[in-house]
Amino acid sequence: MATRILKATARDIRFPTSRTLDGSDAMSPDPDYSCAYVVLQTDHPAGLAGCGLTFTTGRGTELCVAAAELLAVQVVGRTIEEIASDMAGFWRGLVGDSQLRWLGPEKGVVHLATAALVNAVWDLYAKVEGKPLWKLLSDMTPEQLVACVDFRYIDDALPRDEALEILRLNVATRPAREIEMVREGFPAYTTSAGWLGYSDEKIQGLANQAMTAGFTHLKMKVGGDPESDLRRARILRAAIGPERRLMLDANQVWGVEQAITAVRALAEVDPWWIEEPTSPDDILGHRRIREAIEPIGVATGEHVHNRVMFKQYMQAGAIDFCQIDSCRLGGVNEVIAVLLLAAKFGVPVCPHAGGVGLCEYVQHLAIFDYIAVGGSLDNRTCEFVDHLHEHFVNPVKVAGGRYLAPMAPGYSAEMKEESLAVYEFPNGKEWLRETNSRVSGKA
Amino acid sequence: MATRILKATARDIRFPTSRTLDGSDAMSPDPDYSCAYVVLQTDHPAGLAGCGLTFTTGRGTELCVAAAELLAVQVVGRTIEEIASDMAGFWRGLVGDSQLRWLGPEKGVVHLATAALVNAVWDLYAKVEGKPLWKLLSDMTPEQLVACVDFRYIDDALPRDEALEILRLNVATRPAREIEMVREGFPAYTTSAGWLGYSDEKIQGLANQAMTAGFTHLKMKVGGDPESDLRRARILRAAIGPERRLMLDANQVWGVEQAITAVRALAEVDPWWIEEPTSPDDILGHRRIREAIEPIGVATGEHVHNRVMFKQYMQAGAIDFCQIDSCRLGGVNEVIAVLLLAAKFGVPVCPHAGGVGLCEYVQHLAIFDYIAVGGSLDNRTCEFVDHLHEHFVNPVKVAGGRYLAPMAPGYSAEMKEESLAVYEFPNGKEWLRETNSRVSGKA
Repeated sequence: MATRILKATARDIRFPTSRTLDGSDAMSPDPDYSCAYVVLQTDHPAGLAGCGLTFTTGRGTELCVAAAELLAVQVVGRTIEEIASDMAGFWRGLVGDSQLRWLGPEKGVVHLATAALVNAVWDLYAKVEGKPLWKLLSDMTPEQLVACVDFRYIDDALPRDEALEILRLNVATRPAREIEMVREGFPAYTTSAGWLGYSDEKIQGLANQAMTAGFTHLKMKVGGDPESDLRRARILRAAIGPERRLMLDANQVWGVEQAITAVRALAEVDPWWIEEPTSPDDILGHRRIREAIEPIGVATGEHVHNRVMFKQYMQAGAIDFCQIDSCRLGGVNEVIAVLLLAAKFGVPVCPHAGGVGLCEYVQHLAIFDYIAVGGSLDNRTCEFVDHLHEHFVNPVKVAGGRYLAPMAPGYSAEMKEESLAVYEFPNGKEWLRETNSRVSGKA
Repeated sequence: MATRILKATARDIRFPTSRTLDGSDAMSPDPDYSCAYVVLQTDHPAGLAGCGLTFTTGRGTELCVAAAELLAVQVVGRTIEEIASDMAGFWRGLVGDSQLRWLGPEKGVVHLATAALVNAVWDLYAKVEGKPLWKLLSDMTPEQLVACVDFRYIDDALPRDEALEILRLNVATRPAREIEMVREGFPAYTTSAGWLGYSDEKIQGLANQAMTAGFTHLKMKVGGDPESDLRRARILRAAIGPERRLMLDANQVWGVEQAITAVRALAEVDPWWIEEPTSPDDILGHRRIREAIEPIGVATGEHVHNRVMFKQYMQAGAIDFCQIDSCRLGGVNEVIAVLLLAAKFGVPVCPHAGGVGLCEYVQHLAIFDYIAVGGSLDNRTCEFVDHLHEHFVNPVKVAGGRYLAPMAPGYSAEMKEESLAVYEFPNGKEWLRETNSRVSGKA
């Protein structure tokens, strides 16, 4: 029995995180962590629905919602089996819409919305198959996996046959790595200690908590006042000792030469990487920075919008760490493409997470990458931020500094109905409350 | 007396061009040429309003309209004099909105909407000053011009002082070039002959018309069936003779290696450039193509979304022609940045036009570039497509294959009120008619 998609809905869900400065960084002083949330209703006898989202930071979420609705006409009426039988074709059809394409192509609002829809399709597919997404992917043959990828614009660097070779080399050893993942989980690092808006005391306390929780890698935000950056970095380094790894994240605030100066001034705290030192579009700029600040690594990706950009980051030797974003790239299909590129170029993948649902997503991608594509844990660690998980039906579980492999069928981004109702913008209870208190003058 | 912006409106205007295949190419078989159209109403005693647009191709125009409305809160209530006193700061404020920025940054729907708003601001500024935009810009001092540019992310390639130097070198000779432009206009080329959906006979007839009209450069669409591409290219080359220049436009349909093969197969028609041979994001791919197909030039830009990308195209030596788009880049401010980069790297600027209002816009940019920045006509020609000009209050005038310098105050994108009423989507008369005929079964 085929499962047919009967209806697609998209909703604007926003959490008022700007009130507490959770998630504050040099470019985003006041984010309201949000998402465009897509549900694909089906005729499946068990009532299965595909749930997917793209992460946003407040204003403009409605643009992604509207774009998702425009794209959804491409899935409504189709069966998941039909879509799954030609995943690359399905994906190219979405990003190739002959009128919407002008608005990107493959970037910005429309590509973010593409991610929400594609992720919902994969959630549905995994639920129908009764597997968590990482397991669904890890059970696919190399031929099935490359059939999910649109090689247009990347086959000069990674021909289809070479992608197949990479996957085939890992097949025999997949089962051992799968057992390891189920038993031990995937290594995580925490960003929760180092938001830019937090006080020194709060940072120190959170660093201690993180170490107690088993984290060996911590990240902090930089890109504010240089003296303040250094002071906070010293606090963190002193708190975690010389052995644990400290990463810095500038959230694109610097120009190229400015980044080099700024990172050198922070070198004494022995950073493992500098993340987003400059514009995410500046491949050649990242290469220049990387050459100038060796041996400190360069990481980027949460704003790298598609496989064409990642291809060049790797061709140019511009990054040491590839931080795929599950909702910036056009969903699972394009993530697979980038994992394959990273494997080819030998660049470790350390996914970006946090936000809303990103941790729920990337645990699947990191585990799949280890089992079937990259095949190594060297220099791999997956971001973890301890916010907003309570709104998910199957929230992430992190213990001892590792993501525990999720076991529920699907892609883990299904949100609780009561959370959706309370945080829907602008008519959920949480936002009506804010409107009311503003109107009545009580903050 | 300062002129204050009282209100901003954005409208969804669509022309049903897909019915006749005007504008059809390898990636856009059925565009409905459209725009998000912004009007800034003011308290100016003469009733001056700023009019700006961003070009789109049908579906999704409403996303740009909604984004423009979100951005417009940054201009409503301000005076044009206050904005003009810190143009770079104004522009950075727009692209740096702390929540909207996540949806780009500086790309896609939000950046297209930024262009519409920024272009409307410049239209208003030029009207208040009583000058056509090209003249307003050409009368600015080098210091005033660099004060319009956000050098963040480009100052590694073009420090502010070097930009000043470039502009200062041209100051003494500006008046002579201005007289030349007013007297002779700026050289144009035509794309009207070579749309992919046109028959061989139509192409031949249009080529003859173009030559009669004085055009010495013609462009045709390729990227369809290779035999058909070659046949159509031969028809055009035979029609225009060996001396006139023939350009090819693939609209991103190829991968890198595929582009090289395809262009070599078309080399016999002696193309001057191949435009958009592959993804607009693939800087390194364009460089590889350029090296492989010498002496045929490589052109791109209509989908190159910001100054950071153009910077790298030039740093990498990846293009022979820089095709700025007046609505893809974030309006006049970012265009000035790219003109300066092009002057620094010695790359001729040949603006992209066509669509809705793009010809009206780029004539100003090309003329300003010649007078004050690039200072040369060598290898310069500005695209012209003879569609939809009848909807503008001050439509372009092209004669003898040249754009005549526009003389009306403003940036020329003000549309006729009757056109707006008829083509507004979905409730203008033209679209209601279509809905009615569909409903009643009459196509």
